[in-house]
Amino acid sequence: VAVALSGFNTLVHYISRLPQNDLSDLAISFLKKYGVGVDDIIYGGERMGIYFLENGVSVRGGKVLYDRAYSGMASLTPGMINWEKIFQNAVWFHWSGITPAISASAADATLEALQIAHKMGIPISVDLNYRGNLWKYGKNPSEVMPELVKYSHLIAASPEDAEVFFSIPPNSEYKCNLRKEFPNLKKIASTKRISINASHNKWSGELDIDGIVYSSSEYDIYPIVDRVGAGDSFMAGLIYGCLQFSENPQKIIDFATANAALKHTLPGDVASFQVAEIEAFIQSEGKGKISR
Amino acid sequence: VAVALSGFNTLVHYISRLPQNDLSDLAISFLKKYGVGVDDIIYGGERMGIYFLENGVSVRGGKVLYDRAYSGMASLTPGMINWEKIFQNAVWFHWSGITPAISASAADATLEALQIAHKMGIPISVDLNYRGNLWKYGKNPSEVMPELVKYSHLIAASPEDAEVFFSIPPNSEYKCNLRKEFPNLKKIASTKRISINASHNKWSGELDIDGIVYSSSEYDIYPIVDRVGAGDSFMAGLIYGCLQFSENPQKIIDFATANAALKHTLPGDVASFQVAEIEAFIQSEGKGKISR
Amino acid sequence: VAVALSGFNTLVHYISRLPQNDLSDLAISFLKKYGVGVDDIIYGGERMGIYFLENGVSVRGGKVLYDRAYSGMASLTPGMINWEKIFQNAVWFHWSGITPAISASAADATLEALQIAHKMGIPISVDLNYRGNLWKYGKNPSEVMPELVKYSHLIAASPEDAEVFFSIPPNSEYKCNLRKEFPNLKKIASTKRISINASHNKWSGELDIDGIVYSSSEYDIYPIVDRVGAGDSFMAGLIYGCLQFSENPQKIIDFATANAALKHTLPGDVASFQVAEIEAFIQSEGKGKISR
Amino acid sequence: VAVALSGFNTLVHYISRLPQNDLSDLAISFLKKYGVGVDDIIYGGERMGIYFLENGVSVRGGKVLYDRAYSGMASLTPGMINWEKIFQNAVWFHWSGITPAISASAADATLEALQIAHKMGIPISVDLNYRGNLWKYGKNPSEVMPELVKYSHLIAASPEDAEVFFSIPPNSEYKCNLRKEFPNLKKIASTKRISINASHNKWSGELDIDGIVYSSSEYDIYPIVDRVGAGDSFMAGLIYGCLQFSENPQKIIDFATANAALKHTLPGDVASFQVAEIEAFIQSEGKGKISR
Amino acid sequence: VAVALSGFNTLVHYISRLPQNDLSDLAISFLKKYGVGVDDIIYGGERMGIYFLENGVSVRGGKVLYDRAYSGMASLTPGMINWEKIFQNAVWFHWSGITPAISASAADATLEALQIAHKMGIPISVDLNYRGNLWKYGKNPSEVMPELVKYSHLIAASPEDAEVFFSIPPNSEYKCNLRKEFPNLKKIASTKRISINASHNKWSGELDIDGIVYSSSEYDIYPIVDRVGAGDSFMAGLIYGCLQFSENPQKIIDFATANAALKHTLPGDVASFQVAEIEAFIQSEGKGKISR
Amino acid sequence: VAVALSGFNTLVHYISRLPQNDLSDLAISFLKKYGVGVDDIIYGGERMGIYFLENGVSVRGGKVLYDRAYSGMASLTPGMINWEKIFQNAVWFHWSGITPAISASAADATLEALQIAHKMGIPISVDLNYRGNLWKYGKNPSEVMPELVKYSHLIAASPEDAEVFFSIPPNSEYKCNLRKEFPNLKKIASTKRISINASHNKWSGELDIDGIVYSSSEYDIYPIVDRVGAGDSFMAGLIYGCLQFSENPQKIIDFATANAALKHTLPGDVASFQVAEIEAFIQSEGKGKISR
Repeated sequence: VAVALSGFNTLVHYISRLPQNDLSDLAISFLKKYGVGVDDIIYGGERMGIYFLENGVSVRGGKVLYDRAYSGMASLTPGMINWEKIFQNAVWFHWSGITPAISASAADATLEALQIAHKMGIPISVDLNYRGNLWKYGKNPSEVMPELVKYSHLIAASPEDAEVFFSIPPNSEYKCNLRKEFPNLKKIASTKRISINASHNKWSGELDIDGIVYSSSEYDIYPIVDRVGAGDSFMAGLIYGCLQFSENPQKIIDFATANAALKHTLPGDVASFQVAEIEAFIQSEGKGKISR
Repeated sequence: VAVALSGFNTLVHYISRLPQNDLSDLAISFLKKYGVGVDDIIYGGERMGIYFLENGVSVRGGKVLYDRAYSGMASLTPGMINWEKIFQNAVWFHWSGITPAISASAADATLEALQIAHKMGIPISVDLNYRGNLWKYGKNPSEVMPELVKYSHLIAASPEDAEVFFSIPPNSEYKCNLRKEFPNLKKIASTKRISINASHNKWSGELDIDGIVYSSSEYDIYPIVDRVGAGDSFMAGLIYGCLQFSENPQKIIDFATANAALKHTLPGDVASFQVAEIEAFIQSEGKGKISR
Repeated sequence: VAVALSGFNTLVHYISRLPQNDLSDLAISFLKKYGVGVDDIIYGGERMGIYFLENGVSVRGGKVLYDRAYSGMASLTPGMINWEKIFQNAVWFHWSGITPAISASAADATLEALQIAHKMGIPISVDLNYRGNLWKYGKNPSEVMPELVKYSHLIAASPEDAEVFFSIPPNSEYKCNLRKEFPNLKKIASTKRISINASHNKWSGELDIDGIVYSSSEYDIYPIVDRVGAGDSFMAGLIYGCLQFSENPQKIIDFATANAALKHTLPGDVASFQVAEIEAFIQSEGKGKISR
Repeated sequence: VAVALSGFNTLVHYISRLPQNDLSDLAISFLKKYGVGVDDIIYGGERMGIYFLENGVSVRGGKVLYDRAYSGMASLTPGMINWEKIFQNAVWFHWSGITPAISASAADATLEALQIAHKMGIPISVDLNYRGNLWKYGKNPSEVMPELVKYSHLIAASPEDAEVFFSIPPNSEYKCNLRKEFPNLKKIASTKRISINASHNKWSGELDIDGIVYSSSEYDIYPIVDRVGAGDSFMAGLIYGCLQFSENPQKIIDFATANAALKHTLPGDVASFQVAEIEAFIQSEGKGKISR
Repeated sequence: VAVALSGFNTLVHYISRLPQNDLSDLAISFLKKYGVGVDDIIYGGERMGIYFLENGVSVRGGKVLYDRAYSGMASLTPGMINWEKIFQNAVWFHWSGITPAISASAADATLEALQIAHKMGIPISVDLNYRGNLWKYGKNPSEVMPELVKYSHLIAASPEDAEVFFSIPPNSEYKCNLRKEFPNLKKIASTKRISINASHNKWSGELDIDGIVYSSSEYDIYPIVDRVGAGDSFMAGLIYGCLQFSENPQKIIDFATANAALKHTLPGDVASFQVAEIEAFIQSEGKGKISR
Repeated sequence: VAVALSGFNTLVHYISRLPQNDLSDLAISFLKKYGVGVDDIIYGGERMGIYFLENGVSVRGGKVLYDRAYSGMASLTPGMINWEKIFQNAVWFHWSGITPAISASAADATLEALQIAHKMGIPISVDLNYRGNLWKYGKNPSEVMPELVKYSHLIAASPEDAEVFFSIPPNSEYKCNLRKEFPNLKKIASTKRISINASHNKWSGELDIDGIVYSSSEYDIYPIVDRVGAGDSFMAGLIYGCLQFSENPQKIIDFATANAALKHTLPGDVASFQVAEIEAFIQSEGKGKISR
């Protein structure tokens, strides 16, 4: 999310906790390459959380193997990060459902951040990012997440997320029910991925603002180079849209969906496009003509 | 075939004749990596048979250039391999139509193996594997193959194979006619490959047991990474099915076809999937979703 | 164009002007590899024109960044190349609209070549190759190109080209109008590229001879490996056809279109197929079957 | 060690504890490729221990970053592995000082294995493998290792190891003192690496049997491709020598040192040479002539 | 120079003029990766200056082919860059002899920068960087450089540079004569590269401060991965030393020489080491031991 | 040899017999890239002779595995090649001892070529190229080679070659004895390779003309990239020297040795340098300085 926002010339800082070793240096250098602020990253913990990706292709789906246990983020506890200072000039705070999925103390630290951001009046967004292979520390998502989500104003949540995290039935009413449960949630976004095969997906997005639904066009994406990170690119597009053209909800969802569609065409789990590239892409309707 | 069977935790031995050189060492180490037994491979001959593959893509088809003449297998003669010993604990023997295509003596050695296996009551399967660029030693397939096929119980044969090898007309009656010609042939399998282009094929399988036909669903495979070896993966699935769930012919053909479909997504001419992966794949209907 | 023609066993010479440095040596060695004659290339100028290609994939289109300013070709002037000698045994002369797009003096040298070829009675073809990122030396294409095109007998021109270069309306009458404007233009070819996305195009060709239109079948090409150079392969096919089977216009357009379709399956901006490969490809209807 | 021994046609089994995931499958397949027995590996634990290597070159040294905490081996406890069964037909047991360095319970399990092997009369060897970046669970090597080493008959130990592990002064008497401390230690081996730079080392070995010292010649190795694993290759050579030509101590140390020298010329941390290759290498004195 | 200084946690800005295109975006992203400030880079000019490197190895030397003509820097003129603003908080200004070698106007812009820096009292360093393949715009180095060098306080200059740029005889007196000619030059640094072959150089440095000479130890570097950029790394070490421990000239030259020696072990023309890495390297005397 | 001569702008044709397949097309295209004439290559035979190279490095020597049996050259017989036509404008004929090593009929065809060349008065050179792994068709080199060598004027032969091929004792008198045996042999060249290890050789050459010996300087070559083909490059240098500056024997041996030394720095078994590059290299004494 941070890398994508930085590509839009948005000043963005990534907050994390990393062990002090050469891998962390590499990760930080990677973020700097894309212009992401790294000065608020703190050091600590025994190892860096990593994951292994076996990329899918054609009829064979991909696999992710998480190796995040005992990472610097897993042993993060409240009080380690100076949120007041970090939020001083902040205009937005985004968090992911993966953080509270790693450990109880990371969930507590997330709550701490949210309460401080809330007190300081900063808009908050969250991507629920449900991962069945995480959440192994003894608590269910539904015991932890409601308390966290209630401070958020923008959420990316599918019907399935609503069920897993909040026991809300995954039907057409779920957005309405989410809003009932979490009155701060003005904006509920969701994406629809139709998986024809691992190399061919259809992808579209929806943004519901107080019950009014704005839908993007659907992108027919094949071959997919790497789908990992598309959700993050979608989220970055939403945040950028809310900050830059909040009066134009249709443009927000179009921009976010386009950014996510383009992510599918690049390897790795980040993508950094320029605003003009996204806009040209929307114009092109994804027809992929050559420019020369 | 051996590599795929080994992936299913089936104890399998590969019988071949290789020259004693560093290339053979590499080949054997490759087989061992997949758990294939190599203790019955014998040494001899001047060179290792190889082939060159120019992989096709999109509208351009691939090409295979065989360089198998004068290989260890080509100079194999009856008496070189101790079939009685090899078959002692065997529960299945599979042979390929490529072996008798290489030389007259290799055809003789194949016959020797078949007669011994037959005498010892071992079930036999054969993949006809017609290759127009082989069969250059002066005999036609139809002069050699009937004598060999008559010992087999399971065959993979297309209508075209039936014509080339046995002068049976390639019409809908060919399976019936095959059974008439070769009374041991209880099971006749075939695959249907619709080549839309080199990167996009539709693939399905059929298993005819005593005239009753079991059909798999059709897989729509694109992009194809490498189609070479799909027939072998199909064969391995059939053999595994016959050994493990012979009472369920529909499952046999589903399993074999799925294994072959998955092969298309990996480079190289072997693929080693686990049984659970095949089963999950059948469940997924080839939609290629990511698992995380 | 030269590389493709050489693949067809046509004796072909490439005329250019290159600086005397190691890059030129590499370029010349590349041409020699494909059998293209390089003896008439002259040396001079400060640098070699290059371009950078960001290949498109899926919904993301490619980009070309030209870096051709101040190249040896840009500072080419009339009198530098001994056209009389070069054309002595020539049976065809092909030029590209990119040359006069680079500099005024290169346009003058192109005119010089055309006038000499014309005087010597050599058939001339041109590919207009409009590139919006070139033509930066102060003249519009429409001020320069009519004087050059009038000597040509075969042109590859789309309706859009007709408008940009000759202010001819891009409607169905444009070929007719082109012929009115340039009486030498017996043959007008065009290609139709339907860009579904950067990896999936439909491609067909048309050849209009004195108002009679011959159309190729349409190739459905995916995945595309590299579309750059397809137009040149099309042009080479046209020239070869005009030289070898001019009495069979349908074969000309079929051959040219097939050659261009195949180009999409190879990386780089040249492709060298053999005549027999093109013919087999036309037979196969682009179904991409494996040959073994 | 296991991979190298397997290359010498020694039947060898690798004992470990791995989590049940795709990484473990890869690791096991890697071992099988070299013919190492994997049937006694047990499954369990949260993650696989890994390390990251930044290879050194020229004047810049390499770096290893261990990420072994919380691995399957770290949570190994006594009772998990059925040593009696494993040792049934064993003729040798080799262990590494890295195992007790990972966790207290792994140290306990090592002790369990050693006591059982000792009771069953199996010869035992150990490579101390001191790694400053491990041993982080609260105990010093010198508190743990003496109890383990006392069961061993062959040790690879440098003067520095003797000091770190047993507080024995690192002087010329250290081997004598080791034998006093651990009466079972008949054979004490050591290597001498003179690091001229990261790509150029001189390497020799020494084997002390009851006070009689056998020295190898010194190999001048440059450029080094990858020095990691050379100690393991040395150890494998010692074990093979003890098993095959124990009556010839000079041959043992020559063989072990040669095997380790050759390891430096291959990437990765294992090397599998054949006995004949080692012998030819000793003959060649490392002159690296081409064989053709 | 900027990348190396940034690795030492020095705040550094790179001043250049680049065309507005995708190549520039890549170059800027590359600089950001290393933490170099890019906010003062201005846009303009037709192309980006590039060079092609054929890396040497063993007895074969490398070659550089410059393609810098008509770059953004070549058309830089005085007045384009707001030096007053840039120098506002600057504590050092470094320039290279390559800039005035490209064009007359670039030389003028260099002079402009130097005069402003001089007026603002900023310490100035210069690396003469003589390149025989540049200086093609009609002026000799000796007509241009004296006027520029006279504002500098620290120079990297070999005897050969002194002769080419200032017609000072290349003998042991050249540093003395340089100081006479340019009274501001307090510090004169030089490196000594003994080229045994392209993969094996000996490298040492010298720093002369007001006639007192401080010499580094000599590094014996083989194999060399890439020597391009070593001079820049040397320069960065000098500047860092002058800023951080100017009272310790021996440490300055040791640090600069070590940084340059390490550069030889990395591909590419930049290297970013941390201060602690340089210090550990000096301790290690370049013996390249592995750390684990 | 042909590739190297072509790099010196010598018109050269390669004579061989290749099967008509895609591998041959690739091989021919490779030769054309370097400007070698291929028009006299004839088609025939079952396969292309190939070899596998395991490159040596450091103390580990390389290995060549020949797979040349049954190649187009092996089944070459007298009468297949029109030598009279080929030699019409030839000024030199070079053959290798590898050809008669492959088969009896290839040896006969070599004799045919030599007798015709001799009759037509063409200077002949031979590189004995002894390969222990060839010569397997039942004849010893000493039964075949004397009859062939007697037509040659220039030979590359080591003392060991003299013994293997002609039973001449490998002492300092061998050149003298060779000349006695083969009166046409005016020029006897030899190289001296001191193998310190596979990556570090010392290499020098000697040319004996009627008993007067001209010696090159010795090149100290490390790291070696690929030594295969160095002998061919040496031979090409000799031939070029004999053709271009036969009056200057010292220059011949200097040129040949330098060309061979440079070959060691390039991968693959051919190298194509320009005359000016060789001359600059001789000037540089192999010090490998960068040119920029």
